[in-house]
Amino acid sequence: MTRTQNPPGQPEQVAGNGILHRRLFLTGGAAMAGAAGMGLMTARPASAQLPLEVPEWMKAPGAAMSGYGTPSPHEEHVQRSFNSLPGTIGSGVSRTPHERLEGIITPNALHFERHHNGIPDIDPGRHRLVIHGLVERPLMFDLESLSRYPLVSRIQFLECSGNGRANDAAEPPQLALSEIHGLVSCSDWTGVPLSVLLDEAGVAPEARWIVAEGADAAAMTRSVPMAKALDDAIVAIYQNGERLMPGNGYPMRLFLPGYEGNMSIKWLRRIEVTAEPMMTREETSKYTDLLPDGRALQFTFQMGVKSVITSPSGGLEMQAPGLYQISGIAWSGAGRIRRVEVSADGGQSWAEAALTDPVLPISLTRFRMPWRWNGGPAVLQSRAVDETGAVQPTRAALHARLGTQFNYHHNAIQSWLVAADGTVSNVYA
Amino acid sequence: MTRTQNPPGQPEQVAGNGILHRRLFLTGGAAMAGAAGMGLMTARPASAQLPLEVPEWMKAPGAAMSGYGTPSPHEEHVQRSFNSLPGTIGSGVSRTPHERLEGIITPNALHFERHHNGIPDIDPGRHRLVIHGLVERPLMFDLESLSRYPLVSRIQFLECSGNGRANDAAEPPQLALSEIHGLVSCSDWTGVPLSVLLDEAGVAPEARWIVAEGADAAAMTRSVPMAKALDDAIVAIYQNGERLMPGNGYPMRLFLPGYEGNMSIKWLRRIEVTAEPMMTREETSKYTDLLPDGRALQFTFQMGVKSVITSPSGGLEMQAPGLYQISGIAWSGAGRIRRVEVSADGGQSWAEAALTDPVLPISLTRFRMPWRWNGGPAVLQSRAVDETGAVQPTRAALHARLGTQFNYHHNAIQSWLVAADGTVSNVYA
Repeated sequence: MTRTQNPPGQPEQVAGNGILHRRLFLTGGAAMAGAAGMGLMTARPASAQLPLEVPEWMKAPGAAMSGYGTPSPHEEHVQRSFNSLPGTIGSGVSRTPHERLEGIITPNALHFERHHNGIPDIDPGRHRLVIHGLVERPLMFDLESLSRYPLVSRIQFLECSGNGRANDAAEPPQLALSEIHGLVSCSDWTGVPLSVLLDEAGVAPEARWIVAEGADAAAMTRSVPMAKALDDAIVAIYQNGERLMPGNGYPMRLFLPGYEGNMSIKWLRRIEVTAEPMMTREETSKYTDLLPDGRALQFTFQMGVKSVITSPSGGLEMQAPGLYQISGIAWSGAGRIRRVEVSADGGQSWAEAALTDPVLPISLTRFRMPWRWNGGPAVLQSRAVDETGAVQPTRAALHARLGTQFNYHHNAIQSWLVAADGTVSNVYA
Repeated sequence: MTRTQNPPGQPEQVAGNGILHRRLFLTGGAAMAGAAGMGLMTARPASAQLPLEVPEWMKAPGAAMSGYGTPSPHEEHVQRSFNSLPGTIGSGVSRTPHERLEGIITPNALHFERHHNGIPDIDPGRHRLVIHGLVERPLMFDLESLSRYPLVSRIQFLECSGNGRANDAAEPPQLALSEIHGLVSCSDWTGVPLSVLLDEAGVAPEARWIVAEGADAAAMTRSVPMAKALDDAIVAIYQNGERLMPGNGYPMRLFLPGYEGNMSIKWLRRIEVTAEPMMTREETSKYTDLLPDGRALQFTFQMGVKSVITSPSGGLEMQAPGLYQISGIAWSGAGRIRRVEVSADGGQSWAEAALTDPVLPISLTRFRMPWRWNGGPAVLQSRAVDETGAVQPTRAALHARLGTQFNYHHNAIQSWLVAADGTVSNVYA
């Protein structure tokens, strides 16, 4: 990486094509204040406008309060995107519009959903969870009895293993960020440690797996290693403080931190303790990855280290050249994000971004990077490294390893081309 | 504090009336698993119920996806509570139902609101923020230009300074937790550091205050010390990832971490830089605290250290005696929570609760404590200590210091009486 010469009094350029040192954003206002002289600022002189007009909404009492709030009508465009027409029942996905969001928490109303046969309308008073199979005491729980158990809470992401696969197409699809990478969201999950329930049931010595089944019309079923079930798995009953949304498993779901989303069985109704995995449809014909030699990867549980730049991103438009804040999210199923690097020259040079506290294990982490856009073409990329040292691969490296027939665990670096006219598009670089 | 003798193989009792050592909940499943023999468990034997009935919601495809989700119809009772009838316009509050929530994040739809003249219906395309007064360059921002500035995110609470004042009544009001303490909520806030905007405007050397004005029909106006404005104040434009809710200041609000909520001016339209505070209505006749000697405390900005047990709490009902998890929230305007102690005997003995990660500065912190209820009466209390060493006072100590005429900053210890029949009520103890 070549360090560019900086004019005196200007912020330090630390990578090609205008990437500036993250310290501009690290210390809050003190360092950022210097940005006033850098062409960042887009405020207009106000003297001519004073005193301010008093708009009509200041001239009469406003609206009354509500029991459960809704966003401004002016934000109705902030919606999840679909892979099929809204209203279509059965199998499908809806995606979190990360290009319009900030921070690390995803509102429950915008959490991605993946259904295999729609959202069941479950009566929580009749729903039951049974633990049976290789146990001493088969047990049955309803929501009320489960809610009396000790709870744990963790801010963690959930990601569909198919997230990002649009970029397997031969030509880069011209889609919004969320249409490519919107199958990841992050919440404050609260639930009962599954280990407590399994201990109460009394797991037999030969038990090595559990098989979890959902109460949807697909009876979605996956096998989970006992080691994970006893480690950090929970039966989640709250999401960002309130009860789970119907599309995310109301009234209870399995939650397996860092594992591919379809294993965190929604509408959980049955856990069978077994010696072997069940080899269900969703772990044989689906959710396996075909390799170039004709074999397939099975039980690829953990989601890899990944990041995407959310702003600017595909379909958004840049305004005039000047100082910008590149903003994005990074995550890893293996633990904490250690570092995110950003490039503005298609990966020729990189510099380290500022990570926003808190940086939590198996959580979305927000990164930010100052960038001075000179008005010319630029290819923006981000590359995450997690606490195990795993590095997010390029698309070429991922394809060299897995071929082009795999469907899941697509964690390659995303490249956005900022054109001279300010439009942003998806490119392979 | 007397340490009770423990039967062999039983968890350690560390304070009177059944308070157990927090380690039972600290290490997740491993330690908790031992609880199976302690009368915690409320699951029923399941053998007779197998194979499980297939409910009707598994027999046909479920509902389709939506752009913006809504909670289950079975959770419609989880609403904010009001101090006036829903639909009443003008001044009022709505409160977060913490007795029905878990974790630390408050859903935006359930964030408390305090309006002085209703919620304005603001057109974000016409809304402007002006910075003027003792500045070199008066500036004007619209939402689009402001959104281009560098952003910061922080998970922080907001609390109305009137929160808890119901407990000033001579007799303990028999209200739900949220009706007493529901004027506090916690979100992942994202916005522009106010210091950046003030620096661009060029603050004059004699400037010591700012005066912030909202675009509601009350033109809510408060003075804020310049030191706070330049420290950690932001102009917030996102709340838990999405744009602010209308009742929380859409499209932009001031956010002053740790300060009484009314100063975080919603619908922010004007910041005047001044040498002196403005002495507005909301800092003279209101939001001051009358002392016993007839003087009043003014500019009591920072919210004190406080905690409340959310479960069990007033109006809820305990089931049979046995092992329970006491759960609650703690917070301080001065920084991180260092410690929360819990008592089951009205403050005669205390033991330290388990704090759930993350423990963030100026954020709600979730605490949990194992408690074996023997079926007799118990007075449950929690007492928080923050990183500055400040200790949450008893009600008697608070009244000894401030008298009984003060209206704000009521951070006294909350006492819940669990009666032998399992009902939970508000008591002064």
